[in-house]
Amino acid sequence: MRTIDWNYEKNDIIMIDQTLLPGRYEIIECKTIESLCEAIKSLRVRGAPALGAAGAFGVALSAQRSSVQSLEGLMKYIKSAGETIIATRPTAVNLSWGVRRTIRAAEDANNIKEARMFTLEEAKAIADEDVEKNRRLGEYGAELLEDGDTVMTHCNAGRLACVDWGTALGVIRSAREEGKDIKVISCETRPLNQGSRITTWELLEDKIPVTLITDSMSGHVMRKGMVDKVIVGADRITQDAVFNKIGTYTHSVIAKEHDIPFYVAAPVSTFDFEHLEDEIEIELRKPDELRFFGNHQIAPLNVEVYNPAFDATPMENVSAIITENGVFYPPFLLDEVRIKI
Amino acid sequence: MRTIDWNYEKNDIIMIDQTLLPGRYEIIECKTIESLCEAIKSLRVRGAPALGAAGAFGVALSAQRSSVQSLEGLMKYIKSAGETIIATRPTAVNLSWGVRRTIRAAEDANNIKEARMFTLEEAKAIADEDVEKNRRLGEYGAELLEDGDTVMTHCNAGRLACVDWGTALGVIRSAREEGKDIKVISCETRPLNQGSRITTWELLEDKIPVTLITDSMSGHVMRKGMVDKVIVGADRITQDAVFNKIGTYTHSVIAKEHDIPFYVAAPVSTFDFEHLEDEIEIELRKPDELRFFGNHQIAPLNVEVYNPAFDATPMENVSAIITENGVFYPPFLLDEVRIKI
Repeated sequence: MRTIDWNYEKNDIIMIDQTLLPGRYEIIECKTIESLCEAIKSLRVRGAPALGAAGAFGVALSAQRSSVQSLEGLMKYIKSAGETIIATRPTAVNLSWGVRRTIRAAEDANNIKEARMFTLEEAKAIADEDVEKNRRLGEYGAELLEDGDTVMTHCNAGRLACVDWGTALGVIRSAREEGKDIKVISCETRPLNQGSRITTWELLEDKIPVTLITDSMSGHVMRKGMVDKVIVGADRITQDAVFNKIGTYTHSVIAKEHDIPFYVAAPVSTFDFEHLEDEIEIELRKPDELRFFGNHQIAPLNVEVYNPAFDATPMENVSAIITENGVFYPPFLLDEVRIKI
Repeated sequence: MRTIDWNYEKNDIIMIDQTLLPGRYEIIECKTIESLCEAIKSLRVRGAPALGAAGAFGVALSAQRSSVQSLEGLMKYIKSAGETIIATRPTAVNLSWGVRRTIRAAEDANNIKEARMFTLEEAKAIADEDVEKNRRLGEYGAELLEDGDTVMTHCNAGRLACVDWGTALGVIRSAREEGKDIKVISCETRPLNQGSRITTWELLEDKIPVTLITDSMSGHVMRKGMVDKVIVGADRITQDAVFNKIGTYTHSVIAKEHDIPFYVAAPVSTFDFEHLEDEIEIELRKPDELRFFGNHQIAPLNVEVYNPAFDATPMENVSAIITENGVFYPPFLLDEVRIKI
């Protein structure tokens, strides 16, 4: 099933509980806004595109479940539910975007029944569009991969970060769908191990051959000729740099050293042409992510920790950017990208 | 106290139990060859130079504790004990070297009392020589560091891998002893986290400022100008490459990209001029090191894992090699090194 979806039988939201992976695969149902909010806060669903769908389905759920008798009352109710959902992760741009787009769809309704129908249709459309966009991105990207390639990736830019298919991993899925034999090397992605916990899990589910390595092995495997291409996702693409999970920049330098193509796969919504790298503040995460592994202490409690969530890879290290509107090559001419978008 | 030492009060061996760090600092006593063997097998003591001393003290312990009445009987007894100790980690060259050198010292004895004295003196000499060598290495290396430098290191080439002082960390200790203000960035060193568990612990013990990062952050911190020099240890130095903990090569490429000096600190016993990189087989460790953290599962049980213990850094990425006989610069002329040795 998709990462998150509408359950027509029971009229509620279902999702894969990502906090239990890879140990356990469990589908959870969210019957109330409260349980959806808990799921978002606890990262049972995560990844920008998946959160857009979560927000949208949340608004649809509130419309289905409300017992108010007037359209005006319903609109008030779903707006309030939307605000509650947005407040779970206030900096997640996609979450509020999904909420607001779905509320707007209800504004065309003439009665409660239509409002319920329109919100659900809109949420479903948001989810479908995300899959469709990733499919297009995957097809463009697949042209860059050759039969027999081994692709190294970092973190999880897969279907579990999206509604389905994925961006970096979507490219690999599309290439395999075309009959190309593609293997993957997944970096474990410290400190939160999205590579070992989530990427390897979703690739194995799809029977895509994957080998797990530690992040620091990227140099060794590239030097040994074990990697043909690198594909990573992106959190934000400014005029001059790609912001992505910490470690991405290191891999880009190693790829350059070994003349290995370094591709970024990301929807056009990731582009942020208004800014330069230096204007973006990099989020610092909790020191304890490096001092503990679960309950297991792995460093002195008083050791100073530097734990940036992202790093910036300058454009000169990027071989191409794969989007749902096509593949862009350096020099990444902003006007050209703008027109294509 | 030293990593491992002789306890004159109780006539036995004492060591820091490194398996309990950083959570707990505990000194354990080995009163018998059996308990010493258990300590070596369980990695309560680890690191090539420290194992040399462990083997030597083990032979001394067997001589002290034997109740045989003839010199011939004692020699037979300590040789047998030596073989038992060597068998705990058969590939650890230093362990058997320490055992054999101490047994040889007993061969000059004319009676049991002398045999006991000679083995203990020899073991103590082996430990003292190791400290003295590291001190010399540290002093040579300290000349490469400037007041205010931040040094990045990987794994643990510290006092806990040796009897005392350390190699890479010994250089930092010597520089600080000279009054230079040196700060350290320690990479956590996956998959066994020697950097976060041991390096940070021993630096904090000595009040040396240290910041912990994940291995993949090396690119980011070097790009941001947070690192002035990199110093790592070495497991083996062939004519063309430095073998060290996996991840070292990655850091060397990043350092080169940012024009940051990349130093290797290692005693001359690490040099292996007889071989080239391609002739050395790299040990592959257990896949479960990447699938579990303690008892905590962090990857699918059936995921394929590539887990080399070491990587090779080609000489062109090395700025200098710091030894107890001086600092060598590229081109690393083997004849020059040979003469100096």
